[in-house]
Amino acid sequence: MRVALDAMGGDHAPGPIVAGARQAVEDSPELTVVLVGDQARIEAELGPDAPRDRLPIVHASQCIGMDEKPVEALRKKRDNSISRCWGLMASGDVNAVVSAGHTGAMVASALFNAKMFLPGVRRPGIAAFYPSHQGPIVIIDVGANMNAKAEDLYQYGIMGAIYAEEILGVTEPKIGLLNVGAEEEKGTDLTRGTRDLYQSSTWAGRFLGNVEGRDLHEGHARVIICDGFVGNVLLKSGEGAVEFLFATLKQELARLMPDLPGDAGPKMATALKGLKARFEYEEFGGGPLLGIKGACIICHGSSGSRAIRNALKIAGTMASERLSARIVEHLAALPSARSD
Amino acid sequence: MRVALDAMGGDHAPGPIVAGARQAVEDSPELTVVLVGDQARIEAELGPDAPRDRLPIVHASQCIGMDEKPVEALRKKRDNSISRCWGLMASGDVNAVVSAGHTGAMVASALFNAKMFLPGVRRPGIAAFYPSHQGPIVIIDVGANMNAKAEDLYQYGIMGAIYAEEILGVTEPKIGLLNVGAEEEKGTDLTRGTRDLYQSSTWAGRFLGNVEGRDLHEGHARVIICDGFVGNVLLKSGEGAVEFLFATLKQELARLMPDLPGDAGPKMATALKGLKARFEYEEFGGGPLLGIKGACIICHGSSGSRAIRNALKIAGTMASERLSARIVEHLAALPSARSD
Repeated sequence: MRVALDAMGGDHAPGPIVAGARQAVEDSPELTVVLVGDQARIEAELGPDAPRDRLPIVHASQCIGMDEKPVEALRKKRDNSISRCWGLMASGDVNAVVSAGHTGAMVASALFNAKMFLPGVRRPGIAAFYPSHQGPIVIIDVGANMNAKAEDLYQYGIMGAIYAEEILGVTEPKIGLLNVGAEEEKGTDLTRGTRDLYQSSTWAGRFLGNVEGRDLHEGHARVIICDGFVGNVLLKSGEGAVEFLFATLKQELARLMPDLPGDAGPKMATALKGLKARFEYEEFGGGPLLGIKGACIICHGSSGSRAIRNALKIAGTMASERLSARIVEHLAALPSARSD
Repeated sequence: MRVALDAMGGDHAPGPIVAGARQAVEDSPELTVVLVGDQARIEAELGPDAPRDRLPIVHASQCIGMDEKPVEALRKKRDNSISRCWGLMASGDVNAVVSAGHTGAMVASALFNAKMFLPGVRRPGIAAFYPSHQGPIVIIDVGANMNAKAEDLYQYGIMGAIYAEEILGVTEPKIGLLNVGAEEEKGTDLTRGTRDLYQSSTWAGRFLGNVEGRDLHEGHARVIICDGFVGNVLLKSGEGAVEFLFATLKQELARLMPDLPGDAGPKMATALKGLKARFEYEEFGGGPLLGIKGACIICHGSSGSRAIRNALKIAGTMASERLSARIVEHLAALPSARSD
C-alpha cells in the first residue's frame, strides 16, 4: 500500500507531519508513505536513521497557504504539494492521499480531475464522526460542497451508510436528514428535494426522515446528511461545545477540590479524563473524502504526529477495502442517483 | 402593558401556558395578559379565583398543529389562535405577543402583515442566546428565515447588537459572521455578500468577520449572524450536546459514587447542577422575533409555566423599551441596509 502525504500541509508542517509518517511506516510493514513537499525541509525532519526506502520524497517547490483562494492558488502555484499528491493518485503511483492542509484546495484539486471520481458519483463529500448514545455517527458533508443539490445529499447518504458499515461495523445504518424540525414540510427546497428522492428510491426503508439538531445524539440515525456549510458548523460547534463544557467543569471542580475528602479529587479527574476521551476521534485521524477512487483523508490543520499516523493507516485500510466497490455498485443500481 | 398569549400553542397547551400567564400577572401588577384560544378550555384552566380582569380571554376556535404547513394552515384556519394574536397586535390592542406554538406559523403570520415590520426592516429574524466564556451571546437568525439574503444578515447583525445592548447590557457588542473558516474567502455567496455589506458600511468597526463553529464559545463576537437553517441547527445541536454531555457525565459519576468518600458525591452533584443551570436560558423564556413593531417572543414547544411567565415579562420589557426605536434609527441611518 502506497499513500501520498502532503508534508507541507498543516499548522506545524512539516515537523509533526513527517514524524507521523515515520511512525506509520514503523507500525505497518506493508505501508510506504510518499512524502510530497520541499525536499530539503523534509530530509531535515527525517534525519539520517529513517527507513528511506519506505519514505520516498517527491519534491514540490510550492505550498498553498490556509488563507489563499483554493482555485486561484491551484492555478497559480502549479508545483504545489497538494496538486502533486493528486498527480500521484491520477497516475496510479499511490492508492491514497492524506493532507492536513487547505481543505478547499484538497477538494478543488480532486474536482479538477473528474477521472478521480468513482463511477456514478456527482460530487465527493467529506465524512466525519459525531458522538451519540449509540456510538459515533457519520455526518456527511462537513465541508467539501457549499452548494449541494438534493442529488448530492442523496448520494452522501448512501456513501455515508456504506462507510459506517465498513469502518464502524454498523449493520444497515439508518440515514437521517438534518433539518429544523421533525415534520415533513420543514426546511428548505434542498431538504424537501432530498426527502423526495429517498422516498421514491429503493433506499426508502433506510431513510429516517428529518432529524433535528437536538436529536442527533440519540443516534437513531447513524448517518446524517447535510450540505457542507451546515455540516462544518455542526461539527466545529460540537467540538467547541465539548471544550467549553470541560473547561467550565474544570473550573467548577477546582473551586470544589479543597473541600473534597480523601482521594475523591483525583478520582474525579480520572473519570473526567476518561469521559473526554470518548469525544476525541484522533484515532480516526481525519475525515475521508468519499466518492473518489482510492482513498483520501483530510486532517485537521492542527494535526499532530499521532493524528497523521492514524490517518495514514486508515487511508491504507480504506483504499484496500471494498468500500469503493460497494459505493459504485449501489450508485449504479439507482437510476435516480445518476441524474444531473 | 398588554400582551397577547397564544394559549393553545405548545406541546402541553393550554395547561402550563395559562398557569404561566397567571403567575406573570400575579408578579407584575402593571401586566395584562390576553389569553387567546378555546374559551371553555382556558376558563377550565383558570379556575374561579383567577384575577379575570387582568386575564381577559379572546376566543379562537382553531389552533395550528405542529405538523401543519404554516402558510396553508393560516389560510385554511382563519380563526386560529396565532392569527388572532397578531390581529390584536395589528389593531393596537396589545403591545406584544407570546407563543410556544408553531414557529413557522408565528413568523408567517407576522410576514403576512408588512405593516407589522419596523420601518426599514426587510425580514424579521429570531434571536436566541448561546453560552460563551464572556456570558451569553446572541445568535440571529435561528429559524425565521430559511432563504436569507446578505441584506437580511446585515440587518440581523444590527438588530442583534441593539438587542444585546438593551437586554444583556453589553457595551458595543462585536458582530461575527458564522462561517466555515476564519479566512475572508471562505463560505458561500451569502457569507461573502454579507461581509462586503459590512465592510463598506458605518458598522465596519463593529464587524469581526468570520467566526468558526469552534470559536463561538470564546465570545469575542457577542452577536453571531447566520441564516435561519444554520442558526436553528447550531442552537438545537448545542442544546443536544449539553444534554448528552451531562447524561454521560451522570453515568460516569454514578459508576464512581460508591467509591467516593464522605460527602464528595452530594457535593459533586450540587456542583454539576449549578453548572448545568449556566446553560439553561429558561429565565429568558424564549427567542424574540426582532424587527417588528412591539415585541414578539417565540417559546420552545416544550415550555412549562415558568418559561411562559418569563417570556411574558420579557415581552413586556421589550415592548416598553427603546429597543424598537433604536433599531429604526440605526437602519434609517444606513442606506445600504434599505436596499432590496
